[in-house]
Amino acid sequence: AVAAGVAQLSDALNTAFLLFAGTLIFQMELGFALLVTGAVRHKSAASVMLLHIVTPCVVGLCYYMFGFALGFGSVSDNNNPVVGSTFWVLTPLAAFDTFTSSHSLVLVWFQFTFASVCATILLGAVSERATLLASMVSIVIVGGLAFPVVSHWMWSEYGWLGYGKLTGRLFGSGAFDLAGSGVVHVTGGTSALVGAILVGPRTGRYGDSSQDSFTPHNVTLICQGTFMLWAGFAAFNSASVLTITDNFVAAGRCLVNTLLAGCAGGLTMLLVSRLTSSHYSVLDVMNGVLAGLVGICSSCSVVLPYSALLTGTLCSLIFSGCEKATARLKIDDPVGAAPLHLGAGVGGMVITGFTAYPPFLRDAFPGRDSHPGGLFYGGDSPGRLLGAQLVAVVSIIAVVVLLIVPPLFGLKLIGLLIYTDEEQLMGADEAFHGGAAYNFNTEETSADMLTTW
Amino acid sequence: AVAAGVAQLSDALNTAFLLFAGTLIFQMELGFALLVTGAVRHKSAASVMLLHIVTPCVVGLCYYMFGFALGFGSVSDNNNPVVGSTFWVLTPLAAFDTFTSSHSLVLVWFQFTFASVCATILLGAVSERATLLASMVSIVIVGGLAFPVVSHWMWSEYGWLGYGKLTGRLFGSGAFDLAGSGVVHVTGGTSALVGAILVGPRTGRYGDSSQDSFTPHNVTLICQGTFMLWAGFAAFNSASVLTITDNFVAAGRCLVNTLLAGCAGGLTMLLVSRLTSSHYSVLDVMNGVLAGLVGICSSCSVVLPYSALLTGTLCSLIFSGCEKATARLKIDDPVGAAPLHLGAGVGGMVITGFTAYPPFLRDAFPGRDSHPGGLFYGGDSPGRLLGAQLVAVVSIIAVVVLLIVPPLFGLKLIGLLIYTDEEQLMGADEAFHGGAAYNFNTEETSADMLTTW
Amino acid sequence: AVAAGVAQLSDALNTAFLLFAGTLIFQMELGFALLVTGAVRHKSAASVMLLHIVTPCVVGLCYYMFGFALGFGSVSDNNNPVVGSTFWVLTPLAAFDTFTSSHSLVLVWFQFTFASVCATILLGAVSERATLLASMVSIVIVGGLAFPVVSHWMWSEYGWLGYGKLTGRLFGSGAFDLAGSGVVHVTGGTSALVGAILVGPRTGRYGDSSQDSFTPHNVTLICQGTFMLWAGFAAFNSASVLTITDNFVAAGRCLVNTLLAGCAGGLTMLLVSRLTSSHYSVLDVMNGVLAGLVGICSSCSVVLPYSALLTGTLCSLIFSGCEKATARLKIDDPVGAAPLHLGAGVGGMVITGFTAYPPFLRDAFPGRDSHPGGLFYGGDSPGRLLGAQLVAVVSIIAVVVLLIVPPLFGLKLIGLLIYTDEEQLMGADEAFHGGAAYNFNTEETSADMLTTW
Repeated sequence: AVAAGVAQLSDALNTAFLLFAGTLIFQMELGFALLVTGAVRHKSAASVMLLHIVTPCVVGLCYYMFGFALGFGSVSDNNNPVVGSTFWVLTPLAAFDTFTSSHSLVLVWFQFTFASVCATILLGAVSERATLLASMVSIVIVGGLAFPVVSHWMWSEYGWLGYGKLTGRLFGSGAFDLAGSGVVHVTGGTSALVGAILVGPRTGRYGDSSQDSFTPHNVTLICQGTFMLWAGFAAFNSASVLTITDNFVAAGRCLVNTLLAGCAGGLTMLLVSRLTSSHYSVLDVMNGVLAGLVGICSSCSVVLPYSALLTGTLCSLIFSGCEKATARLKIDDPVGAAPLHLGAGVGGMVITGFTAYPPFLRDAFPGRDSHPGGLFYGGDSPGRLLGAQLVAVVSIIAVVVLLIVPPLFGLKLIGLLIYTDEEQLMGADEAFHGGAAYNFNTEETSADMLTTW
Repeated sequence: AVAAGVAQLSDALNTAFLLFAGTLIFQMELGFALLVTGAVRHKSAASVMLLHIVTPCVVGLCYYMFGFALGFGSVSDNNNPVVGSTFWVLTPLAAFDTFTSSHSLVLVWFQFTFASVCATILLGAVSERATLLASMVSIVIVGGLAFPVVSHWMWSEYGWLGYGKLTGRLFGSGAFDLAGSGVVHVTGGTSALVGAILVGPRTGRYGDSSQDSFTPHNVTLICQGTFMLWAGFAAFNSASVLTITDNFVAAGRCLVNTLLAGCAGGLTMLLVSRLTSSHYSVLDVMNGVLAGLVGICSSCSVVLPYSALLTGTLCSLIFSGCEKATARLKIDDPVGAAPLHLGAGVGGMVITGFTAYPPFLRDAFPGRDSHPGGLFYGGDSPGRLLGAQLVAVVSIIAVVVLLIVPPLFGLKLIGLLIYTDEEQLMGADEAFHGGAAYNFNTEETSADMLTTW
Repeated sequence: AVAAGVAQLSDALNTAFLLFAGTLIFQMELGFALLVTGAVRHKSAASVMLLHIVTPCVVGLCYYMFGFALGFGSVSDNNNPVVGSTFWVLTPLAAFDTFTSSHSLVLVWFQFTFASVCATILLGAVSERATLLASMVSIVIVGGLAFPVVSHWMWSEYGWLGYGKLTGRLFGSGAFDLAGSGVVHVTGGTSALVGAILVGPRTGRYGDSSQDSFTPHNVTLICQGTFMLWAGFAAFNSASVLTITDNFVAAGRCLVNTLLAGCAGGLTMLLVSRLTSSHYSVLDVMNGVLAGLVGICSSCSVVLPYSALLTGTLCSLIFSGCEKATARLKIDDPVGAAPLHLGAGVGGMVITGFTAYPPFLRDAFPGRDSHPGGLFYGGDSPGRLLGAQLVAVVSIIAVVVLLIVPPLFGLKLIGLLIYTDEEQLMGADEAFHGGAAYNFNTEETSADMLTTW
């Protein structure tokens, strides 16, 4: 009876853990919304906010209907290395009155928050000119298909790619991506890059005249969003151990490594910003912090702190380089979503192939006999993990491109991909959403009304 | 000894659960503050923020002195179906050095956050013209009296109305309201409607001239608030199971159903907004999400996901209809608090009478022999639950009207209910709070000062 | 085996507890950022946000390298009453694969959030004129040295000052400071006061002309920040019990007392504000809430609710008096950081010497034979605790002054402490960070660009 009590408590604790972690990760949606809203022009503010609240609405519905099934719908007699194929519309999962740690409704909630974050990434890159329809189609593709499929590859114990695969792991190792440098950020970042290229730059963005008018309309909002995201990443990364009951040491490691990677990214960009321009750019530092956080996702549970610092530093530099490259290529990405999530995400995945510390891998998967680990630590078969990481990155990019290009290109052909120049000039808020987001000059009218009243 | 250790761990986990849930629910206060502040004119922004921070101050004091006692001050030898009557000023509760799950201080904290949310609802409806005094009186009435009394009826095991009543349940069923579609939202929404009617419209609101000057001053803030509230609802609804140790499966169900109801509400209003106007209204979508969340509160632990989708869809339509009705009746409710909380709250309570799934009710109350459940599932005595839900709605509306009309009407008689036309024209910030909330034009003055300096 | 399972669950629960509490406390950084940003002029908004995100970056790095070592780097064979001296760069702590409640990585995360909050306090006081360099130096001093040292004195079981010292406690009692009225707020508040004095007032602040141009640029942001901080304090104070498994009753007490102190502080200042000026000041009420919260930190686990109300009331009055004093002394502290954190922090520490309730102290430290408690409860040796509290306050102020004056004074001597008058007039955003935070007038430019396009 006492043993049953312990087992029940264990289930309850793991449920509470994913419940709160999911709620804190859900707050990241607000972080993204603030960041992108602040980065666009004021005449698109309400439109951007709308898109960000529509994203979890759409992803929630898709994840319920088929997303969770594609991602985690595998059981021992119905497994598939590419996609899951049970639990459509959560049946019979939603009717269970018992708890299984790998197929409970709280896991649906938790994984939904990841799917939603993943689908949100693209919104920043295509903001101010992609149509509402194009954005919603992209959200369905990324949150409902791409993320679920990739998460199955990496995180399901039957997926072909992941470190936790039960048998026959890739290169005898499998790719390690605890919290999604690859699954979430490379997926979302690829969709952002493809989206930004397909929708093209905003009207007037690369004209001859000054580009001042494309400066962010509210830096304070951007900074608020960055803070919300940083706090969210603490939960995002540490809760990716899923069951706190037997991974609490690893969860603590995730917290410290996540913190240090963010710190290193921010301070690196503070320095780089000063060296490459005449000022300390607020936006560069914010993005540096985020690049560190994106990069450490994959390895936060299996590296030593100095590796986390290295990861944060390198990923912020990668971000900075990618951002300069997109600017040179005249790819208009108002928030730098592609450099941030794709650049730093790929960086994090690759760096993991060097930094993963074998004893911590063994700690995470005690049943396995061999843990080659990162190149820094040699071991008996160096390079196996790194190879798997590279295959993971290429595979993720490929599947996302394959899934998202056709529908967006189709929308382009029929003229439904982007707003017209006139609509962009007017601003989406005025053109499509009933008016401006900000109304600060109302006194005179009120005075007049009072007289007539 | 091990069994005692398990019991202690169980108490600790339940405490931590309510501790964090309460903290996340407390953040909903910020959500309301942002939503209402964004929805009013800029000249009332600081005043609205002040009211929202005064609300938890007042409710906290009332809940300490008598609110918790009225709500949960019942023990086996001192029970009462209408109000609790022990634990005044938390004595001797606050001196306990042991934990009881039904009378611990962490429960006081948790239930306080509900009382505070409930009392906050009215602020949006009466904003920009109700006096500080009138607002504070309303907060005392709703947070200190109405919510505690109604929560006793529904959630105390001695209350006359609730599903969890130990003996002699209403119609042999009792009303089911897990997280407060009725207890929180019908209570708060009724106070909002009564308040908005009694204080009347803002000066100039329904004059002949354009109503543009009453458009929200900052849509971005409204959207921020909606995001905060959505995240809060995840904790609000799932933590309403109170003890996670023996309700963790139900908590997961709450999360998924709450998510789906919000998604359905938002997407429904996106469509409705486009069909009934020429644009996709940001505010309609935000309110649609919230209407779904309000509606699912009562049933989130006992329905299947498709019922949650249905609930969200219907409640957002009910909200939309009620909002049009209040506009036609020239009831000035700047944020639509009454349509949202009263409309969708009543909707949620009634729909529960159709959708409650008997096996989940049995799961929640395993000791009971009969669970008629919702009309959709027939059973041996259909309609008992629906009947109880209807009695609950009518009773809650009645008691709130009885409690709040006399004091507000009294204030109206002595001229202390609303600000004068001049004060409203000037704006509450300038008139009562020492100046405007926003000060963006300061450079010139600074330059002058520098010269003189 | 079952007993081992219980022990493991206990470690897991305590880890999850500090994980989520730390994340909620980390959100307080955003609260501070919003509060200070709203309180300064719009031309410094981006600069202030930057400083607030740089703070956790710098503190994180310092805490990793030496902060945690100084604070908690003590083990039984290597203890020191003044500073810890093991675990430099978290070695070998970061390589542990087992959990110890007093030296785990999750504790590093949790204590880091306290260090970061402590270092942030000064930013408000020196804002708009201290250089980025001076701010960063201060952050290193406070977050990397002062807080760790003081936390060792008070919270390490080997520190010379604290109530939990294993043997030879100060005056046979030791000072009691559960959540840091002294360790966090007196430390941070002293640094704020010293900083504000050394950097001097902002250019033009105390000239003859009107001071209107120094009014906060966005009261809404200040209120948002206050809400974030209030929610954060709930986690900050209750999680300071560290191990929820054997302190869950105390945690509940912390929540209720923290709530009541905030309520009392806010309502007191609402009244005081009306009595001492012609209006209800929004900022006074916000600061009143915060003063109550700061004051109750030290005693929230060991006092009865009426003492919490008393603490909140007195600390808000102390804040108000200190704020008037700093204004009269022409110490320019744009957010009142020194009156708030130093004033109310000292108040809270001293009041604890009166209000600490012996049975609750016994509950917290069951192994000790004597608990004199606060003066209100007499006991066998009254005044011992109060004496220790006074020594704590004086010692903390002294060490902070000693640590922070030399480097800031040095920067002053070499002209790197503050921005020039011209730079201040232009605003830090324009002068150092690449442009204004707000860009609301972009249409015309866009129209021109469209023509050229």
